[in-house]
Amino acid sequence: MTVLEQSARRAREAAGLVADAGAGGRTRALELMATAVTGAAGTVLAANALDMAAARAAGHPGAFLDRLRLDEGRLQAMVATLRDLAASPDPLAQPGLAWTRPNGLVVERRPVPLGVLAVIFESRPNVAVDAAALAVRSGNAVLLKAGSEASRTVNRLVEVLSTGLARAGLPRQAVQVVPGDRDAALGLARLSGLVDLLVPRGGGPLLRAVRAMATVPLVETGPGNCHVYVDAAADMAMALDIIVDAKTQRPGVCNAAETLLVHRAIAARFLPQATAALSSRGVTLRCCAAALKQMPGAQLATAEDWDAEYLDLVLAVRVVPDMAGALRHIRAHSTGHSEAIVTEDQAAAAAFLSAVDAAAVYHNASTRFTDGGEFGFGGELGIATGRVHARGPLGPEQLVTYKYVVVGSGQTRGERWSSRGR
Amino acid sequence: MTVLEQSARRAREAAGLVADAGAGGRTRALELMATAVTGAAGTVLAANALDMAAARAAGHPGAFLDRLRLDEGRLQAMVATLRDLAASPDPLAQPGLAWTRPNGLVVERRPVPLGVLAVIFESRPNVAVDAAALAVRSGNAVLLKAGSEASRTVNRLVEVLSTGLARAGLPRQAVQVVPGDRDAALGLARLSGLVDLLVPRGGGPLLRAVRAMATVPLVETGPGNCHVYVDAAADMAMALDIIVDAKTQRPGVCNAAETLLVHRAIAARFLPQATAALSSRGVTLRCCAAALKQMPGAQLATAEDWDAEYLDLVLAVRVVPDMAGALRHIRAHSTGHSEAIVTEDQAAAAAFLSAVDAAAVYHNASTRFTDGGEFGFGGELGIATGRVHARGPLGPEQLVTYKYVVVGSGQTRGERWSSRGR
Repeated sequence: MTVLEQSARRAREAAGLVADAGAGGRTRALELMATAVTGAAGTVLAANALDMAAARAAGHPGAFLDRLRLDEGRLQAMVATLRDLAASPDPLAQPGLAWTRPNGLVVERRPVPLGVLAVIFESRPNVAVDAAALAVRSGNAVLLKAGSEASRTVNRLVEVLSTGLARAGLPRQAVQVVPGDRDAALGLARLSGLVDLLVPRGGGPLLRAVRAMATVPLVETGPGNCHVYVDAAADMAMALDIIVDAKTQRPGVCNAAETLLVHRAIAARFLPQATAALSSRGVTLRCCAAALKQMPGAQLATAEDWDAEYLDLVLAVRVVPDMAGALRHIRAHSTGHSEAIVTEDQAAAAAFLSAVDAAAVYHNASTRFTDGGEFGFGGELGIATGRVHARGPLGPEQLVTYKYVVVGSGQTRGERWSSRGR
Repeated sequence: MTVLEQSARRAREAAGLVADAGAGGRTRALELMATAVTGAAGTVLAANALDMAAARAAGHPGAFLDRLRLDEGRLQAMVATLRDLAASPDPLAQPGLAWTRPNGLVVERRPVPLGVLAVIFESRPNVAVDAAALAVRSGNAVLLKAGSEASRTVNRLVEVLSTGLARAGLPRQAVQVVPGDRDAALGLARLSGLVDLLVPRGGGPLLRAVRAMATVPLVETGPGNCHVYVDAAADMAMALDIIVDAKTQRPGVCNAAETLLVHRAIAARFLPQATAALSSRGVTLRCCAAALKQMPGAQLATAEDWDAEYLDLVLAVRVVPDMAGALRHIRAHSTGHSEAIVTEDQAAAAAFLSAVDAAAVYHNASTRFTDGGEFGFGGELGIATGRVHARGPLGPEQLVTYKYVVVGSGQTRGERWSSRGR
């Protein structure tokens, strides 16, 4: 048995104990994990300082360093996630749907844990805490594979979280780090029967390799090429607020907007204001030829811009002849993450919300709300952009499955009891 | 573009039209599909006769021929499935869960179709009808890959079903046969982005190859090594009814019982009666040494018997020291399909139902009820034995996904509107 298999088997045993601990036991564990992180803040920051120094020496760019970096505020956000999930409804304590069949059988769909989760992520240390907290809230164990640049920080964080688990009487093995490189990540994807759900975060070559090699079930959290469509009937002040927020409030995340689509009828009035508002916040604009006429100083977009996930202060802008044109553009370029319409026309809004196929579709709100916390889930493990198992924020309720509990009084499929004559 | 990719793209276009048809349009299509099958019964039976003759000439065994064979009764059952699903609730017409956030955003989780389903199956022609009917009910399209032995029957059935679709104004391409051999089946599994959910039915080498090669999401309908545990506090007459039904009512299906576990305290009274009842129905018994003492004429089981899915009139029997022993045996040998306890002891029943990890767990009822029709789903595409996306019968509600529809009044993540200070 490989080291990885041993870890997964220990995780499965631990998962059973987390499940058996009950909602109260899991809540207490989350509270003690929060206390442990608070108490060990100094050692976590010290480990992070070593990772940061190594990453700087290796010449990683600023955006990478920013994702890796911890400070007091970010540690407090981790503690807040643990406490939010401690206060969140336990998904296993929810009553299952139940119904009675004509033959008297009572069928109940009862929530049960998935078992062993695995998460592959890159450099953001908060993912380790989010994943551990969500796993515990949903009665699961989790195997964490972080990028090597974050290994000191993540190892220390997981030690601290495990201490919190142990203080609550739960097994430390419920949250484990998987050491090793890219091969270890691919190894996780092939632990059929040992890993119940793998969540590879982020995109790129690793995700494609995982998808091609995986024998375990996957839920992918893919990229977000998110659009804001400003309709002819938009409230222009609201549209400005929304596109500025969706682009600039946190440009490096997957629910930030990457393309602005503007109805031709409103372009001449809206685009100059949008240009001023966005430029003053440092946004580079890449526009279609029609938009460029209203946006002096902007760059001309190329075909690649319509598919770019900039994750930066860059925005593509296109004028569309009508809503059908906006829908065509979105259908061709959406990654199925978050798409928004700004309009006062209720019929247009309803048509857009129905026609657009994405994890989240918005009317008169920023795409930045596609987030487990903002949806009220207490936390999330990422935004699923596939269609199977779960879509959108992966909160505690998306990390459980169910079983059918059927209670009878001697029913058989023979003639006496059968509800239909198969 | 390969022929397979072309089929999948046509299926996606068709799926959009099935989704847009609304619940009424889908109901009408199912009714016209039923009418079409009734009207074309003669040609379907004639095609099946050709498949049967070829399968007999090829020397396929009786059980295989039985699965392949159609007759008037089986055709009527297909028509009944189409009519049952026509009368079933449309999963896309169900109201989504909706809630309001503190910042005023209204979040609705709205059901939407999965898109393009694909089903790989062997020789039972009714799977083609079940899959087509479920796909239409849930607003999807479906690609069908049948075993070559069933190809004439399945091709004819799909022609007939497509005629029904066309009469309802829906595209024939919503239900398509994928021609070809095993390579075509594996090709389906690699249509990433074109197939939204693949359901490989049955077990064996093809399933393992599909699992290893798939780049599309899978829900597996695996084998059923189902157990009936007769507790010390069982009603013996009920226990006899249940094990006889679970083993003999239809031995060739996945929810039939394969192993009987009997509490030591009741073994000397129960096993002789069980032996008589089962032997008289032609069941071969393979027993542990302790059971053999009470079961003259039975065979001694080997270790392999505890993991066998006989799908035949054969039953493994084991005496266990207590319920913990039964749970240990089930944990070691269950395939996670259907497991039953027979007891009048409510505490023992509750403990069993909680401890056993399977798609369906039963108290005082036959395992044979794990079935979409019996659960009230109108039909099913198989019994999922994995944990992700869906578990147990794959009915119409398991063949949809959802999207979040978020309606605001200008909310942004900026300070003015944000519900928490991230």
